[in-house]
Amino acid sequence: MRDLAQLATPAAADAPLRGRALGDVDLLEDAFVLCEGSSVAAVGRMRELPPLDGDVVEVDGRGLSAVPGLVDCHTHACFLGDRVEEFALRAAGASYEELHAAGGGILSTVRATRAASEDELRAAVERHRDWMLRSGTTTFEAKSGYGLDRETELASLRAIAAAGGIPTWLGAHAVPPEFDDAAAYVDFALAEVLPEAAAIAEAADVFVERGAFGVDEARRYLEACVDAGLALRLHGDQFTELGAIPLAIELGARSIDHLEATGADGVQALAASSVVGVLLPASALFLGRQMPPGRALVDAGAAIALATDFNPGSAFCESLPLVCALACTQFHLSPAEALGACTVNAAHVLGRAGSIGRIAPGFQADLVLLDAPDWRHLAYHLGGELVTAVVRRGELASQR
Amino acid sequence: MRDLAQLATPAAADAPLRGRALGDVDLLEDAFVLCEGSSVAAVGRMRELPPLDGDVVEVDGRGLSAVPGLVDCHTHACFLGDRVEEFALRAAGASYEELHAAGGGILSTVRATRAASEDELRAAVERHRDWMLRSGTTTFEAKSGYGLDRETELASLRAIAAAGGIPTWLGAHAVPPEFDDAAAYVDFALAEVLPEAAAIAEAADVFVERGAFGVDEARRYLEACVDAGLALRLHGDQFTELGAIPLAIELGARSIDHLEATGADGVQALAASSVVGVLLPASALFLGRQMPPGRALVDAGAAIALATDFNPGSAFCESLPLVCALACTQFHLSPAEALGACTVNAAHVLGRAGSIGRIAPGFQADLVLLDAPDWRHLAYHLGGELVTAVVRRGELASQR
Repeated sequence: MRDLAQLATPAAADAPLRGRALGDVDLLEDAFVLCEGSSVAAVGRMRELPPLDGDVVEVDGRGLSAVPGLVDCHTHACFLGDRVEEFALRAAGASYEELHAAGGGILSTVRATRAASEDELRAAVERHRDWMLRSGTTTFEAKSGYGLDRETELASLRAIAAAGGIPTWLGAHAVPPEFDDAAAYVDFALAEVLPEAAAIAEAADVFVERGAFGVDEARRYLEACVDAGLALRLHGDQFTELGAIPLAIELGARSIDHLEATGADGVQALAASSVVGVLLPASALFLGRQMPPGRALVDAGAAIALATDFNPGSAFCESLPLVCALACTQFHLSPAEALGACTVNAAHVLGRAGSIGRIAPGFQADLVLLDAPDWRHLAYHLGGELVTAVVRRGELASQR
Repeated sequence: MRDLAQLATPAAADAPLRGRALGDVDLLEDAFVLCEGSSVAAVGRMRELPPLDGDVVEVDGRGLSAVPGLVDCHTHACFLGDRVEEFALRAAGASYEELHAAGGGILSTVRATRAASEDELRAAVERHRDWMLRSGTTTFEAKSGYGLDRETELASLRAIAAAGGIPTWLGAHAVPPEFDDAAAYVDFALAEVLPEAAAIAEAADVFVERGAFGVDEARRYLEACVDAGLALRLHGDQFTELGAIPLAIELGARSIDHLEATGADGVQALAASSVVGVLLPASALFLGRQMPPGRALVDAGAAIALATDFNPGSAFCESLPLVCALACTQFHLSPAEALGACTVNAAHVLGRAGSIGRIAPGFQADLVLLDAPDWRHLAYHLGGELVTAVVRRGELASQR
């Protein structure tokens, strides 16, 4: 690949970028990226490109700009059906909690997902993966959590892995209708699902919220999961502050995700911890809720990541470029901070910061070419189709 | 074209749809659309499709849904350069008015646009038109207003027309630096530009705002334009209520556009008038400002349209599907109301409601095929690339 007008990559990061360092982007004009196999072999200026022997496939990047393949560290991409009817009802004024209480919400997707075969689950994840890829996402995490029974949870995790995603067991997403209460369901999930889920998933996740799981049940679930070898994630402070941030810190979770309702104390606590705050502005927009305190978190020194929250109910959005635009316009990240948040820092959340999230020798050859003279159009071109080509593991995976 | 799973089109509308009628959408399952030349010849269910003789090109719509070609009635698509630097500064906290006062804002685009040749202007509009087309826009209006001198204003209008857009003379967009005040600039524009502009443009437009044009200058400008045979538009109530709504009503304007700052009195006045309120939620989002009172306007009985406001400074967004998503999530239009607002009602604003904005016999054959089983994904699939094919004047103009 040669003749790029401009290449932008987050600077080296052994730990998640925090504070001012989040906006540290290395910029190279007139750049080349030399890939060998699935890895980056060299990055430099065109005039420094060494003579190349053998079979070389060139991708002409003139007039374009390049950023690392984007990393989506929070999606619910394994589901069947849609929730467009619920979307239309919400537009007419119903709240998310009201729809959930009325039997819509997560459980309506659980019904559709339980009815699917494992092949159908895999086809659904692949379809969603291909949407993400066209928007520049080369690595995605996906959670189970629309099965909530043994068979469908395990099939979901296998389908995610088979489609190339990084599986997270969201066994504690909602309490399914066949259980009387959260405690009984957690008993079941830990006894019947965790042993096999732990062999497929890399992390466990829990939805800490009124109507879902309280802090005590979440602690019990997560402690069993860490004993089974899983990394920990939490959905917290989406609608109410129930104490998910202290729990995440207590247990050494990799991340706490959402944070729309987080107040000043939570911001300070997170900033003093090693837990990454994963912000999901497309979800806040989709539900018409307040945005997470992204600027305050960065200014306080917290490590944040950005993700889509792609799911059929509260964020039917697979586009990380749109998420970057929302972060810049709605809570005042700079484009450089937004880029760091959905590359290097997202890679840290997924335990892969040594191999993805940057364009540098030895890193996986994942690149996005943008139809723009300045890479910051990634956030500036709101809803634009600016992703021109995507290279994944050294192969041209998507091109317009 | 055959085998569509679902076709949605606004119901017939001799006048702009208002109140509950805005959401009147005719739905047809298992539909066909028969086009002859550039027009729709017949619409019906597949089982009613008559035998066809002669050369018939089929577009297979199975599994897809169809809506009318979208109509963008408010864009500033004729410009050179970008404002990504300003975008990054605003993300860091600078306000639109501060950036404008600092020599950024509209006048920075005026500099870049004045430096362009007419061929370059046309190429820029064509590039932007093609972006719009890929997002489903088959008819677009575009304004001059980045020239603000005789030569560049007229070249802009010709470039817009040559690229297939509907030209609006936004002679009163800003006061260029070579004039001391708005009155002197309006004198110049009316004497030196209007006579030829009126022969190219269909409408005139003025930016009524602090730092741009007050109501008295706007009235003088618009009265001269109507005398020259132009329809009237106004940018009003974007940041402050200066009296643009009463002026629009007094002069019988086709539309008043923006309305983010419109209060209850303005809503009532507009509802009692025949002026269409054009809402531009991508602009409000881009600038991090409050949304226009879309729900209140519809409930009060006003006629509204939706448009992108595509421009490099305050809405670098060409996507009407994203605008529909914003209207549904940010000010509670239903998907059906959003569809009516960017098809039939936008066509009324452009004086073309008899030929575009609906899928019906005799209408121009402009269709958008969506990769979705339900047409409401147009608004539901936030930032998704769901436009699979676009038919414009009976020809397949864009396809993935």
